Amino acid sequence: MRVHARDNVAIIVNPEGVAAGAEFPDSLTAREAIPQSHKIALAAIEPGQPVCRYGEIIGYARRAVEPGQWVREEMIEAPAAPDLDTLPLATRPPAPLPPLEGFTFEGYRNADGSYGTRNILGLATTVQCVAPTVEYAARRIRAELLPRFPHVDDVVAVTHPYGCGVAIEAPGARIPVRTLQHISLHANLSGQPLLVSLGCEKLQPARLFPPAFAGQALPVLEAANVIRLQDQLGFAETVAAILRAAELRLIQLDRRRRHTCPAAGLVVGLQCGGSDAFSGVTCNPAVGFAADLLVRAGATVLFSEVTEVRDAVHLLTPRAATPNVARALIREMRWYDDYLALGQADRSANPTPGNKRGGLANVVEKALGSIAKAGSTALMDVASHGEKVTGKGLIFAATPASDFICGTQQLASMNLHIFTTGEGTPYGLSLVPVLKVSSRTALAEKWHDLIDLDAGGIATGAKSMEEVGWEIFHRVLEVASGRRTWSEHWGLGNALIPFNPGPVT
Amino acid sequence: MRVHARDNVAIIVNPEGVAAGAEFPDSLTAREAIPQSHKIALAAIEPGQPVCRYGEIIGYARRAVEPGQWVREEMIEAPAAPDLDTLPLATRPPAPLPPLEGFTFEGYRNADGSYGTRNILGLATTVQCVAPTVEYAARRIRAELLPRFPHVDDVVAVTHPYGCGVAIEAPGARIPVRTLQHISLHANLSGQPLLVSLGCEKLQPARLFPPAFAGQALPVLEAANVIRLQDQLGFAETVAAILRAAELRLIQLDRRRRHTCPAAGLVVGLQCGGSDAFSGVTCNPAVGFAADLLVRAGATVLFSEVTEVRDAVHLLTPRAATPNVARALIREMRWYDDYLALGQADRSANPTPGNKRGGLANVVEKALGSIAKAGSTALMDVASHGEKVTGKGLIFAATPASDFICGTQQLASMNLHIFTTGEGTPYGLSLVPVLKVSSRTALAEKWHDLIDLDAGGIATGAKSMEEVGWEIFHRVLEVASGRRTWSEHWGLGNALIPFNPGPVT
Repeated sequence: MRVHARDNVAIIVNPEGVAAGAEFPDSLTAREAIPQSHKIALAAIEPGQPVCRYGEIIGYARRAVEPGQWVREEMIEAPAAPDLDTLPLATRPPAPLPPLEGFTFEGYRNADGSYGTRNILGLATTVQCVAPTVEYAARRIRAELLPRFPHVDDVVAVTHPYGCGVAIEAPGARIPVRTLQHISLHANLSGQPLLVSLGCEKLQPARLFPPAFAGQALPVLEAANVIRLQDQLGFAETVAAILRAAELRLIQLDRRRRHTCPAAGLVVGLQCGGSDAFSGVTCNPAVGFAADLLVRAGATVLFSEVTEVRDAVHLLTPRAATPNVARALIREMRWYDDYLALGQADRSANPTPGNKRGGLANVVEKALGSIAKAGSTALMDVASHGEKVTGKGLIFAATPASDFICGTQQLASMNLHIFTTGEGTPYGLSLVPVLKVSSRTALAEKWHDLIDLDAGGIATGAKSMEEVGWEIFHRVLEVASGRRTWSEHWGLGNALIPFNPGPVT
Repeated sequence: MRVHARDNVAIIVNPEGVAAGAEFPDSLTAREAIPQSHKIALAAIEPGQPVCRYGEIIGYARRAVEPGQWVREEMIEAPAAPDLDTLPLATRPPAPLPPLEGFTFEGYRNADGSYGTRNILGLATTVQCVAPTVEYAARRIRAELLPRFPHVDDVVAVTHPYGCGVAIEAPGARIPVRTLQHISLHANLSGQPLLVSLGCEKLQPARLFPPAFAGQALPVLEAANVIRLQDQLGFAETVAAILRAAELRLIQLDRRRRHTCPAAGLVVGLQCGGSDAFSGVTCNPAVGFAADLLVRAGATVLFSEVTEVRDAVHLLTPRAATPNVARALIREMRWYDDYLALGQADRSANPTPGNKRGGLANVVEKALGSIAKAGSTALMDVASHGEKVTGKGLIFAATPASDFICGTQQLASMNLHIFTTGEGTPYGLSLVPVLKVSSRTALAEKWHDLIDLDAGGIATGAKSMEEVGWEIFHRVLEVASGRRTWSEHWGLGNALIPFNPGPVT
């Protein structure tokens, strides 16, 4: 499978790979056995000459490569990351695609104008100290109270490893604090969680919801909705207090009903995890097509993962709607370059053993495949780590690439998540449905009770990119309307891990 | 309550504080109302003159203080941290105290020579991606299998937020990796957990247990004890595979019995959390007395929390057994100074709102109270973050002060935990029993079903330090032998949060 006319490598589609001597229709012969999703040279490549995939240079040959050879990781010298000082700014913003009218989902309307895709009782927390207590209470609520409230989907302990033992005045602390602010007021919690605090922690309730948040926070900070453990008479009393407050909230939440909402109310976060060389040609571009459909329907689409965008940033800055948006994207790349350098690392630390086994030679090849999720529309805005996205259209929300940290940060804004995977991961989140799309049919078949949608047919020719893209788009509307995903079926929610570049004390 | 003859401040013991005009036996009169656990001036203090508690300077008066005045946080200028270049090295190592013979506990003997205080089936994990799956399996095992194995205490999903999306080659990564190595082979898991891996993650099973670990890791890495999700046929099959492996391990674990073990087999981690001004005069020195008893009985005692030792390090380096031990302590202080500076913070970021409400003026006063836990014996060794402690006696195991991060790191070594608290926190760990000791009787009464032991009687004169110290020592032996703590009763286990000073990608 060759992606672009300029490419001098292609990837092997056959599940069992190819044997040495295998002949291709265009008279190319494999000079050695090559596993599935790994690269074969389409032409001779001289030492120092570019190796091209996606029409872009993914590196330079370290030695002479013959046509039909397996082009392995160690044969490619990665190029330097694009220079952030010379990037084109908003030079080719794509013209808007024709709007898609009339698409809707059945969701929940919140007082602040946001839309929920689920109706969840949230037990937000200020600090890790209270997490086991809140999880204990959540189990009791689920077992003893929830059955009486059939219109409430779930109760979720919104626990996390932040809140104390941290330098909360350090510059880096703004990121986890604002991430938790927004998650605590998540649209799927109707913006009104209960809040459980210890009492002596650094992240006091009034710090989690400072005056600037007053508009949104007022209902949260009603005394009845804040439970402070150090005011309670022991553990059993604490749990009883949480259960009493929870019952009052459940009565309110149970009155809510799904209403027809415009597709523009969706905020869809995109992420890939456990990627292979197919990800960039099947699931990611199919999700990119669906992203274009969502943008045309007026929705918000977030793509993220700084280290998986860094090496393709030269393809994105021209697509920015304005020079300022391009500059904001560059600002996020630079911030992360500096952050990694401080820890004596760089973006080459990104690819995993699985990525490499899956045929991805380096972070450049990974990034080119990763940004395919962003489709083809103009980049409308850039949000910094943990900021809440309020705009419409395609938006870069800066996050680390780590699946669980990226997902946590996207939760500051998103009400639905699309997750593409090649190697497979049983990823899920408790606050939003996660729609998992596989890069290969073999994975979808093997993980039949984890993968929601298969994009592997694109590689075999069984389906077109557009078909799979529309399939994803329609499934997004169904899931937003209440159709359960596999991770919801099994109750799989990865832990919330806010990104904390600040020091712990 | 005055601690030292040199002190010019004392703390108020009365639960309701004192009113303005209240007279003390020594003819001191309170000039204003002062809350419990806050400081009263015993003499006039001129501007710029030292404020002394514990016989040490906790700061300098910012303005003139009259006898009987409330000495509040803002009236005290904190001193600079002790200069690390001029500290006395092993100048006054205390002579060994008389050995305590014949103390034992009923524990589990492991093949590697370590002793368990509980008999737990551990489901260790390489990466956060598998955490919800493993937690799901653990719930099934607890409900369906565990009742058939009455000699097994529990099944614990040893999940954590590390393993992928991290710069695993960065210098900082050694810390979380070795922390997880040691925790995975914890003495309470008989050193033989099952290991669940995703497959494509950075922290591969062979990286978690590299050849250097072979001696310990061999049993772990038996193929039957490693379950790789990407080899499994979907979620239900994965869970079934974990349950099958778990049943085989449960059969083995159920054959284990408690045997009489020497008290020297205990590795007791000390920590304080939610401290108040009483902590340094009741629970912490009582724990310090118990620490001396444990050391005399041949056990290992770990104290930790770099930022709560930093300002009292000049009291510890003279106590080091050798100059090299003192230098190792200084090395850990310096490393943390640099780490905090990199994040634009310093040790003054440590105290919490609750500490200050509880009367602790600054990190110096907090540190002086904190190190009281370390008792009076010689400092025998220093372990770096996440290293496994193998020596006997009093050892400084470097950790951040954050309760859940400190606890996680101490788990690399400890088989029992003592946790002192003044404000109160429902802290617990799943892998070891946590004995919670309160600084004030009011807390022990209020949190009657969370606090295991009260040291508050020391402040009121109801009990002596020695009495409470012996009480803690005997309770340690009982808990090590199987007596359950309150956090075990309720099943409260804080999340494992390995310290990761390296960057995430």
